[in-house]
Amino acid sequence: MGFDKYEEFYAKRTGGLRSSVMRDMMAVTARPDVITLAGGLPSTESFPARTLAKITHEISMNSSAAALQYGPTEGFDETKMNIARVMAAEGMHVDIDNLIVTTGGQQAIDLVTRVLVDPGDTIVAEAPTYPGAIPSFCSFEASVHQIPLDDEGLRIDLLERYLDQTQKKKIKPKFIYVIPNFHNPAGVSLSLERRHQLVALARQRQLIILEDNPYGQLRFEGEPLPALYSLDDDDNVIYISTFSKIMSPGIRLGWIAAAAPLLSKFNLGKQAADLCPSTLAQMVVNHYFKQADWRDYVHKVTGIYRKRRDAMLRALQEYFPAEATWTHPQGGFYIWATLPEYLDTADLLALALEEQKVAFVPGAGGWVDSSGANHMRLAFCGVTEAKIEEGIKRLAIVIKEQMALYRSLH
Amino acid sequence: MGFDKYEEFYAKRTGGLRSSVMRDMMAVTARPDVITLAGGLPSTESFPARTLAKITHEISMNSSAAALQYGPTEGFDETKMNIARVMAAEGMHVDIDNLIVTTGGQQAIDLVTRVLVDPGDTIVAEAPTYPGAIPSFCSFEASVHQIPLDDEGLRIDLLERYLDQTQKKKIKPKFIYVIPNFHNPAGVSLSLERRHQLVALARQRQLIILEDNPYGQLRFEGEPLPALYSLDDDDNVIYISTFSKIMSPGIRLGWIAAAAPLLSKFNLGKQAADLCPSTLAQMVVNHYFKQADWRDYVHKVTGIYRKRRDAMLRALQEYFPAEATWTHPQGGFYIWATLPEYLDTADLLALALEEQKVAFVPGAGGWVDSSGANHMRLAFCGVTEAKIEEGIKRLAIVIKEQMALYRSLH
Repeated sequence: MGFDKYEEFYAKRTGGLRSSVMRDMMAVTARPDVITLAGGLPSTESFPARTLAKITHEISMNSSAAALQYGPTEGFDETKMNIARVMAAEGMHVDIDNLIVTTGGQQAIDLVTRVLVDPGDTIVAEAPTYPGAIPSFCSFEASVHQIPLDDEGLRIDLLERYLDQTQKKKIKPKFIYVIPNFHNPAGVSLSLERRHQLVALARQRQLIILEDNPYGQLRFEGEPLPALYSLDDDDNVIYISTFSKIMSPGIRLGWIAAAAPLLSKFNLGKQAADLCPSTLAQMVVNHYFKQADWRDYVHKVTGIYRKRRDAMLRALQEYFPAEATWTHPQGGFYIWATLPEYLDTADLLALALEEQKVAFVPGAGGWVDSSGANHMRLAFCGVTEAKIEEGIKRLAIVIKEQMALYRSLH
Repeated sequence: MGFDKYEEFYAKRTGGLRSSVMRDMMAVTARPDVITLAGGLPSTESFPARTLAKITHEISMNSSAAALQYGPTEGFDETKMNIARVMAAEGMHVDIDNLIVTTGGQQAIDLVTRVLVDPGDTIVAEAPTYPGAIPSFCSFEASVHQIPLDDEGLRIDLLERYLDQTQKKKIKPKFIYVIPNFHNPAGVSLSLERRHQLVALARQRQLIILEDNPYGQLRFEGEPLPALYSLDDDDNVIYISTFSKIMSPGIRLGWIAAAAPLLSKFNLGKQAADLCPSTLAQMVVNHYFKQADWRDYVHKVTGIYRKRRDAMLRALQEYFPAEATWTHPQGGFYIWATLPEYLDTADLLALALEEQKVAFVPGAGGWVDSSGANHMRLAFCGVTEAKIEEGIKRLAIVIKEQMALYRSLH
């Protein structure tokens, strides 16, 4: 595109927006010859088609007019009761008056930012953070400060040091965005001790934590860890999650749990964003929860994801170079691999696609300043075990080639 | 709610957000004893339940995994082809590369604002304007200037005068938001002459027009008028519409048609907002367009709405006081009534609900500065003819009481 006549019209923030992982992933997965370890695509082929047929038949024959009509901005009470059941399965108690139904988990992040952030305000996030959160933060012109994580999740000591420094400058972050379980993209989980530390810190300093938990129910092994939301007794945690990973992303339903005064603001924000969540989609969820035990399906897909993770760990061990390291997630969708510092995984992706027809997400997407270029996110959720092995094998060829090339030049 | 511990966290814009008509309406319509002339609720009970059952059965049995999965941010090509067919029925030619599918028409307004507006930028809108657009404009901290409309729609002469004045101050609006057909809330349509004038003005001064056309296909009488989008040959018009009024609002699908460079920005904005439109909802639309002639349904509901409009016009003539005036819409959902200046329809609504159990939308919702208090929006779309007559009759009682009270005091 040459001269753009709209240049003078674009908001400044538009320059800060960039293509998220999801979009890149969708374009890549449209090519059938590519093995994609890029997208976090749930195994929707595991959902029983007959159940969907039965549910939608009932909705059509008994409540077609209501399913096709507008609904309340905050969602149906029945949807909220089912959300409360999902949260209860992870040890959280929530009243339905503390819930709003959103258009997927993405809108939950976007709404919280819309309501809390003025241009220039600070948001604290992990380094790396969920790549899809960055365009939301940019949309409302936040200044994002990222704090490194390690194998036990967010480094609370570094967070505290940062807060001390900024307090002197009278800067208080609007919220601290964390993904405590099976982090996207890093695959790690926040340890129990750090969970307690983080919640205590929020209480001491009166900070808001935005806890994003799309993957918490997809645990392969180990003891479940309490949500920050359940450890907090001071209304400092805003909790967001989604039906995308426990049921379907195609229905676009997520939620926010928060204290009532915040909820009324999110409600105003949601009216501006898209008026109300889909009534048809909510009815699909609600009929499903009535007809079937939703946990059976979660159990089934978790078993599938665990086998796929195992296949990926085996393949990494077998094919990846000795210089590479990777996380060992106890659940979720992603393994985070770290390559030698001199490699740029964005360049690597171009080669991997062209030469080996394999895709992944370059690490830089997890940083606002595009650092982290020697990392890569490998999704094991959406591909068969055989393809995972083949994909990692092909990827290792490109990595080793690039390492050999680098060594020959230095 | 007393002390709000979150007060220091809210974005400034949160104070500018206010409850939209939709939310007020949803709370009111939840009360079965109330006759509501408030909400713009399409007649979804007219949609054949068997058709919905057949469509969803096919989707479930043949493409369950895809329907439940993520999809491309911009929507499926098939959805865009069906949107092109809808636009063709109103005389517009659009290439699918100039379309993005949105989560209802509301998100279309919100996305355009997200991409184009920096805090403090000017948006020009009609006075009154769609009440639901105001929270979107406030979310991105626009300064909204409203230009009066009359029976022929937006006063182009006043718009031109305003543009002359602001040009001297080096202010250029980011866009001019207009609803040319069967205006919400005012019920009027932009005349052919003014359509040509507006498009010419945009060309001369290189302005962007945001044309919002949810109701264009719902014409009861008179000749269709060309969309601004079809009169524009200089890529100055961004066109938005929705499946809400021609099919169903519960599926939450709308769209934006615009030049390609704008589209790529809207795509980035949509990734931040909610990643992608619902795949299930899109498949419902696409199967429906394959199975049935969507225009048959539009024709059927337009006939229903016409009878309801006629019933409302008759009732207004019979029951409303001589001092009141109202618009005679040739299509759409709404009649706009004007009462004596001394009446405040917000107060009137409280009385109407309490004493007569009838609801409507107070006029002030159509202004950013809450002027226009002596107007009211009366929706004829969602209520039977008998209830419309009864509702207007009850409303007239309250109005006449208040007029008598005022006269007795002055």
